[in-house]
Amino acid sequence: MSYRGKKLINDPNDVVTEFIEGLVETYPGLQYLDGFPQIKVVLRADVSGTTNDKVAVISGGGSGHEPAHSGYVGAGMLTAAICGDVFTSPPVDSILAGIRAVTGPKGCLLIVMNYTGDRLNFGLAAEQAKSEGYKVEMVIVGDDCALPPPRGVAGRRGLAGTVLVSKVAGAAADSGLSLADVAIEAKRASEMVGTMGVALSVCTLPGQVTSDRLGPGLMELGLGIHGEPGAAVADLQPVDVVVSHVLKQILSKEIQYVPITRGSRVVLMINGLGATTIMELMIAAQKAVPELQLEHGLAVDRVYTGSFMTSLDMAGFSITVMKSDPTILQHLDAPTKAPYWSVGAEGDRPPAKIPVPVPPSCSSRSNEMITQPQELSEQGCILEAAIQAAANEIINLRDKLNEWDTKVGDGDCGTTMYRGATAVLEDMKKCYPLNDAAETVNEIGASIRRVMGGTSGILYDIFCKAAYTSLKGSPIISSKQWASALEASIAAVSKYGGASAGYRTMLDAFIPALTVLKEKLEAGDDPLTAFLLSSEAAMNGAESTKDMHAQAGWSTYIAADLLSLVPDPGAMAAAAWYRAAALAVKNKLQPSQS
Amino acid sequence: MSYRGKKLINDPNDVVTEFIEGLVETYPGLQYLDGFPQIKVVLRADVSGTTNDKVAVISGGGSGHEPAHSGYVGAGMLTAAICGDVFTSPPVDSILAGIRAVTGPKGCLLIVMNYTGDRLNFGLAAEQAKSEGYKVEMVIVGDDCALPPPRGVAGRRGLAGTVLVSKVAGAAADSGLSLADVAIEAKRASEMVGTMGVALSVCTLPGQVTSDRLGPGLMELGLGIHGEPGAAVADLQPVDVVVSHVLKQILSKEIQYVPITRGSRVVLMINGLGATTIMELMIAAQKAVPELQLEHGLAVDRVYTGSFMTSLDMAGFSITVMKSDPTILQHLDAPTKAPYWSVGAEGDRPPAKIPVPVPPSCSSRSNEMITQPQELSEQGCILEAAIQAAANEIINLRDKLNEWDTKVGDGDCGTTMYRGATAVLEDMKKCYPLNDAAETVNEIGASIRRVMGGTSGILYDIFCKAAYTSLKGSPIISSKQWASALEASIAAVSKYGGASAGYRTMLDAFIPALTVLKEKLEAGDDPLTAFLLSSEAAMNGAESTKDMHAQAGWSTYIAADLLSLVPDPGAMAAAAWYRAAALAVKNKLQPSQS
Repeated sequence: MSYRGKKLINDPNDVVTEFIEGLVETYPGLQYLDGFPQIKVVLRADVSGTTNDKVAVISGGGSGHEPAHSGYVGAGMLTAAICGDVFTSPPVDSILAGIRAVTGPKGCLLIVMNYTGDRLNFGLAAEQAKSEGYKVEMVIVGDDCALPPPRGVAGRRGLAGTVLVSKVAGAAADSGLSLADVAIEAKRASEMVGTMGVALSVCTLPGQVTSDRLGPGLMELGLGIHGEPGAAVADLQPVDVVVSHVLKQILSKEIQYVPITRGSRVVLMINGLGATTIMELMIAAQKAVPELQLEHGLAVDRVYTGSFMTSLDMAGFSITVMKSDPTILQHLDAPTKAPYWSVGAEGDRPPAKIPVPVPPSCSSRSNEMITQPQELSEQGCILEAAIQAAANEIINLRDKLNEWDTKVGDGDCGTTMYRGATAVLEDMKKCYPLNDAAETVNEIGASIRRVMGGTSGILYDIFCKAAYTSLKGSPIISSKQWASALEASIAAVSKYGGASAGYRTMLDAFIPALTVLKEKLEAGDDPLTAFLLSSEAAMNGAESTKDMHAQAGWSTYIAADLLSLVPDPGAMAAAAWYRAAALAVKNKLQPSQS
Repeated sequence: MSYRGKKLINDPNDVVTEFIEGLVETYPGLQYLDGFPQIKVVLRADVSGTTNDKVAVISGGGSGHEPAHSGYVGAGMLTAAICGDVFTSPPVDSILAGIRAVTGPKGCLLIVMNYTGDRLNFGLAAEQAKSEGYKVEMVIVGDDCALPPPRGVAGRRGLAGTVLVSKVAGAAADSGLSLADVAIEAKRASEMVGTMGVALSVCTLPGQVTSDRLGPGLMELGLGIHGEPGAAVADLQPVDVVVSHVLKQILSKEIQYVPITRGSRVVLMINGLGATTIMELMIAAQKAVPELQLEHGLAVDRVYTGSFMTSLDMAGFSITVMKSDPTILQHLDAPTKAPYWSVGAEGDRPPAKIPVPVPPSCSSRSNEMITQPQELSEQGCILEAAIQAAANEIINLRDKLNEWDTKVGDGDCGTTMYRGATAVLEDMKKCYPLNDAAETVNEIGASIRRVMGGTSGILYDIFCKAAYTSLKGSPIISSKQWASALEASIAAVSKYGGASAGYRTMLDAFIPALTVLKEKLEAGDDPLTAFLLSSEAAMNGAESTKDMHAQAGWSTYIAADLLSLVPDPGAMAAAAWYRAAALAVKNKLQPSQS
């Protein structure tokens, strides 16, 4: 019933080979050694042992920990990575091939995680290489803090801290240090780092069935990265609690090689175990940083958050704390071309947040005294009448709009529009500057969006905002300016809403209205006549939506034969308020004829 | 019974806020706007609208797609990202706050994914900003290729291709282009890109229960990134088949805005959907590149593999193909400080693999004529006798060793050692250069590792390799040199194997043997006497392991009272062959006394 264990792979036996092929396809700076796929060595495409004038830094181990280690190959970090099969140490011949391929006169440092297989295979390869005349040193990393000493320290597993050790060693080598000095730096780094993990799921090996070890509501603490059980199973807790617990364990005195006492400086790594989202990792970082600062009295120099050392598809993370000092920081900050090293974490941490300018909205502008003027101009009176009529028309149409919408949409068109119309009438009394048509249109949009919500509310706000931008700056608005404003509104609604003529939306009222309005004005008709004819066109357009196939909004989900019985309620509402406004203007200008 | 839906979070309502806090803790170059957490805007810490002399590039949308979009904020890519709640478009006020904070005189480009909510909210914010005097352009990205036109093209969802469009726009802006020109570049890029996804699991919203939509053995094709169902459900196939199918769909003519015909150049993005391992993504890349080249006749300029645009914890990936040309490539390759842009994919792809030096091993050196000499020197004769005696002793001890190991280990010590001893006797006849003791010791290691495998095989090879490095170069080996060789062997076995004296291993035979050997030689005893006494010490040491607590190997899992009945079989084997060798040397040197 779940996807657990499902993988997007081919033959489970080919996963490592095919991974490496994809890796070198993706990163032109990486290459694999000839002898592939028997020999699985990823190395810098620009380095060969015969020309390498720096100490080579090599790491590796079983696969399944991607991007470790091959993703850290690149100038300034690893010179080569030796890949074993999944969770299996690479054979001696592969390691030797890697050493021979990249080691120059200055020798090479092997960075090995503390697992018996890796120690032995890398160890034998090192002895063989030495017998061939290569200078070889090895540093073993065991940063696991899950178990208390003596077993805990002697047998500490290598975990995500290895990535930090590799970065320090790679930068030290890149700076031209001798093999002995690079090994000293790496050894020192390995003794300053501690890691502990927490998991929500067990990893699934390619081609195998997933273990049911971790039930719902449970998590595992102090786990390794090879699917082995953790030190403890506990009820799943909020991540803040988990982070506190893990940090306390890592920083407990009996666990550490080198004590990290209050006042120390540290770097932090939050490491995803394979199937953990960046969101969750960042949430852990959000807790870990202040916890280190406030609870443990430590200065946090750097934070690395990402999936650096994984355990196949395990869900969970590990936390690594490394004591830092200027030398360590310099090596961690040094540039590298390794594709998976965390870029952007370097540099000092900023002090404060960026202040935001106060947004000028209707409510926040109340202290700017934009309120309804005492004396309305002639245009102000007409505008008031038009708005009032339009809003009242929508209020009257509520039930009819709902009825149509029940058949072709989600049934709330009338109710939603009613809310907007009511708000417009209320706000008009309070704050519409009716003598300034542009600002009034702008405020209408704000009123509507405040109460209507959803798509129609925002579309009407866009409608009004575009009209406002078109109109603003003119105290008296001409008919042609109104037409231009309508055109701008239609363009904005179409652009952002994605609908065009014939999509069965409000535009099927407004587009014919605009066409007629422009036509009549250009033909020299008087503005009122043009407006009235335009509003008739709007109503005809809205009625014609009965015959349209829906291409936007809810109605797209309704069968065509059902749609043909009713017009689009949004278009009908638009036509209705537009016609009511036109009639109100007529009544104002020609009261005798009404 | 599974971890599905389990998340390492705190309050589900706080996930976006806490994500952003972790993000800015991790990346000092990122900052959030004041007004947080109501206003969720991540922006470059080094840019403010009042000083920004370049076009600002802003993207955003609902959260849950991390690292999109906030992870792409940085010089050369996005100036700011506006974050909504999970899968919810950000409100207009947040978008406006972001625009106001980073937009300078050259204006800003909004890059918006084609979802109604995003179009409307960003659209309204754009109109509002324009009305305030900002220059604003918007480019809408709809790269989804799951559905055929006309619905397919009009309603194409924005998917991972948006990341490529953001990179192109960011680089164009960084190069100093005008708003109009940046918008043209971004629009062009948005028309050259197509994406299609495949999923193994449905994503789980924070605090919600996971859908059971996708059963075992099933996958979904042509899905979106908000948990909505895909265009089709199919049986899970090998990933090579899936990749072929998806590429065929993306490249089908009726789907594309801009045709990608044979001979075109493209860039490829393999995008993980949240819970997909790097291993799986690279395996997909491994197939996609040759498929594009050979099946579709396209040149692949760049490959971006990673999790760029996710859907919470969904398992699966999308493939994006973008037509490329020199301008697009220049923008994609341009440096950026955005932490999640794929670094290392830029640059031309290398031609061939690195050749590996042939490893000189026993078998491969057969043509170098290292074979047993016809005439043995005196030392060669003694060495032959010692090896023969040692090997025969192990052969005779097989059942006894197995018996001990059954009690304290996995029961195969005798069998394993027997295999090694037999191989040594066979290979000695074939290729041991017995007159050269160093090379012979080296060959013994190779024989043992070839047939023994496991920990003991490799430890004996390390033992021999270290002795070889210590001995080599001397045609005649002195007693002190043999002692030094033994010391080097012990050091290497201890270092790589992790055991010391008292750990209940072979070292508990060799360490006392070495101590006595050095003591007697330094005291001026004759070498044979020293060797014989040393071999007695070895046997006493091995017997004393009965009283030792195991600290390495299988026996660590056995209770102490069981261990006290039997010696460590590995130590006993070591002492036995060492004493047999010593007695054989005595017989050669003092045949009358035997």
